[in-house]
Amino acid sequence: MTKLIKELKQIDLVLNEVIKYVKHGLRVEIIDVTNAHGHYLAEDIYALIDVPPFDRAVVDGFAIKAEDTYSASLTNPIILKVVKNRNFINHGEAIEVNTGDLLPNGANAVIMYEDVVIRNEYIEVLKPVHIFENVSIKGEDFKKGELVYKKGTKLRSYDIATLIAIGYKKVSVYKPRVALICTGNELVDFEKVENIEKIIQEGKIINTNRYLLELELKKLGCEIDYLGTLPDDEYAIQNVIEKALKKYDFVITTGGISVGRRDLTIEVIKKFNPEYLVRGLAIRPGKPTGVAVIDGKLIFLLSGFPVASYIGFEILVKPIVLKLMGCDEIPKIKLRGRLMRRITKPINVKAFVRAFACFEDSELKIEPLILTGSGLLSTLVKGNVIIEVPEEKEGFDENEIVEVEVIKEIPKCK
Amino acid sequence: MTKLIKELKQIDLVLNEVIKYVKHGLRVEIIDVTNAHGHYLAEDIYALIDVPPFDRAVVDGFAIKAEDTYSASLTNPIILKVVKNRNFINHGEAIEVNTGDLLPNGANAVIMYEDVVIRNEYIEVLKPVHIFENVSIKGEDFKKGELVYKKGTKLRSYDIATLIAIGYKKVSVYKPRVALICTGNELVDFEKVENIEKIIQEGKIINTNRYLLELELKKLGCEIDYLGTLPDDEYAIQNVIEKALKKYDFVITTGGISVGRRDLTIEVIKKFNPEYLVRGLAIRPGKPTGVAVIDGKLIFLLSGFPVASYIGFEILVKPIVLKLMGCDEIPKIKLRGRLMRRITKPINVKAFVRAFACFEDSELKIEPLILTGSGLLSTLVKGNVIIEVPEEKEGFDENEIVEVEVIKEIPKCK
Repeated sequence: MTKLIKELKQIDLVLNEVIKYVKHGLRVEIIDVTNAHGHYLAEDIYALIDVPPFDRAVVDGFAIKAEDTYSASLTNPIILKVVKNRNFINHGEAIEVNTGDLLPNGANAVIMYEDVVIRNEYIEVLKPVHIFENVSIKGEDFKKGELVYKKGTKLRSYDIATLIAIGYKKVSVYKPRVALICTGNELVDFEKVENIEKIIQEGKIINTNRYLLELELKKLGCEIDYLGTLPDDEYAIQNVIEKALKKYDFVITTGGISVGRRDLTIEVIKKFNPEYLVRGLAIRPGKPTGVAVIDGKLIFLLSGFPVASYIGFEILVKPIVLKLMGCDEIPKIKLRGRLMRRITKPINVKAFVRAFACFEDSELKIEPLILTGSGLLSTLVKGNVIIEVPEEKEGFDENEIVEVEVIKEIPKCK
Repeated sequence: MTKLIKELKQIDLVLNEVIKYVKHGLRVEIIDVTNAHGHYLAEDIYALIDVPPFDRAVVDGFAIKAEDTYSASLTNPIILKVVKNRNFINHGEAIEVNTGDLLPNGANAVIMYEDVVIRNEYIEVLKPVHIFENVSIKGEDFKKGELVYKKGTKLRSYDIATLIAIGYKKVSVYKPRVALICTGNELVDFEKVENIEKIIQEGKIINTNRYLLELELKKLGCEIDYLGTLPDDEYAIQNVIEKALKKYDFVITTGGISVGRRDLTIEVIKKFNPEYLVRGLAIRPGKPTGVAVIDGKLIFLLSGFPVASYIGFEILVKPIVLKLMGCDEIPKIKLRGRLMRRITKPINVKAFVRAFACFEDSELKIEPLILTGSGLLSTLVKGNVIIEVPEEKEGFDENEIVEVEVIKEIPKCK
């Protein structure tokens, strides 16, 4: 009866091991650039054209030859003739241009209106202009053929603008197909809730994990099919997982992975004879988190508790999926600050302590919220940083300077 | 002819002033909680129920009375009778429970399977359990009636899970209606581009601002109508702005705001007799950025250059829109690091220098990319931090420790 998780695996070890067993890639789609925001690139991107595509004026004024102006001054202006209806200038000439205009042939600089006096068909130039002054040179932003993005780059607003500017209409991105399955007799689907008081009286709770995970998966560019909130029924779970493994790039389950009688998911997984199986990570919260590879495909086994499920997603699912998308390093935003209260934890377990941090002048003050409480969503709502306490440490002392990962903006202390 | 922007206004002054003239609020909609991700709350949110709604077991095992176990030890176990088919216990009794289960009446703790020996209808308890051990107490996460979110909070994945958990099906959020107008004879609409070489030969460029701004506005929860890429034609611009001011919560234009002949947008705005008008901010890039209030409605006048337009959005549009949504403080993620190269700028102008930062061990190294180049998208692509150089400074020295705002993840130095 006492089926213990005897050996908890270190998360870094699992991340290194599991990837070797994965034989199934993530779906790639070629989509319109204007739909690619938030997706991860599935190809290296080279500039198809020079940006700007020609020498451009970056102010309104007159295109000139810089060398004509070198002796100009307020007291000794240079006179240039304004020519029209042609696209080149000779020495001693100027052509009026607007911001963004192609520079006329022969011109190598633009002088602004405020630095000239206009006299009918002539201008008086009041100061010298250097070569390329007020000009954006062809290819200055991006050179044709230049590597602009590596595969695995997440596309932000200015990346979409850049892709358009460098000549792309379509782009190849990852769109992993994901099946999400939540298990637990206690769970009720949100959309089926008519009367919340009745749910409570029955001792049931609303399935919140589904929405949390769907939203996090979307941020990775995934397309998610929710396959339902399943009861703790071995055959029901097996049936759904079997179909999911055929159709999707990877599968995520929540619940059913602890050491109790009802922890059926893990039993079901064993039946599929996985090439790789880890049940139990040396992390807190999220200890029962697991991962398996079945016929080359990943199945992630997350906790039924929302915070443990979130942490499991962040430290297990996200790094592996990003790696499969060509993102080798997952840069995090880290800050150092002063811990306002002591935190302790068991040795040989990596702890992820949610905390609230604020700036008092330039010093970051960090108030740990709670060490356990894997079900307490309020720690994610109230927290804005996570303190990672390594396996070998028993905690951190009050006033110790520690490093935190930023998950939300940090305000000034009140 | 030389219409100079004589007096550049400081951005902080403008942010304080302009808000007083705005009489038109932003649209609010009541939407399904499951569609609210990324939106800003238009109401304070109080928990409608306790979470958890009852005392819950957080492990699989046996619900007991803690005080029954106080003298238990490995050598001297306590014997408890396992009862079934009832929802209460007396002293000396235990009921088997699964994770998530409602705690039976009379029970105040749960003992895990690994801490008991099961003997038919009895269990031997091998260690003492304290009150509420392995129990999540009713209301421990959120108390019914507790203020969980203030108006103006941006909703993230775990906030959606939380709203569901605390009993919400619908929620009131901001969905500002925004009109976006881009002006400039040199601009070609992306979707109309058949042959990019032809565009280049004609000296035209593709309008990238539209996509950059649409995506940034979406992050604020806005619904955007793009009203077209307009030529530099005063009547066309006036016509479109007039209609936009009637229908939308606010209007954004790009281009046509510098000091040249073609800067028609500003001339059009003047015709509407605005209650408030600023043309020209003491910022770099983005100097010609402006903002006006016409009949109580905001119109933002952004540069036609993509980076200047992005900076103008970040420091002018975003703070004002957030303030109208009840977000008083816009917390930013700031880091301190060592500047690898000197930067200089004119005095009395606030400069926003894009830079690339990386961690060498725990020290942040900051390489400024370029000070000007308001058209250079590559500075946003390659940069991950922005250095704000205040009005009164002429720059920062090499090796000076400066503060930067993080706009993208920061990797290790290579």
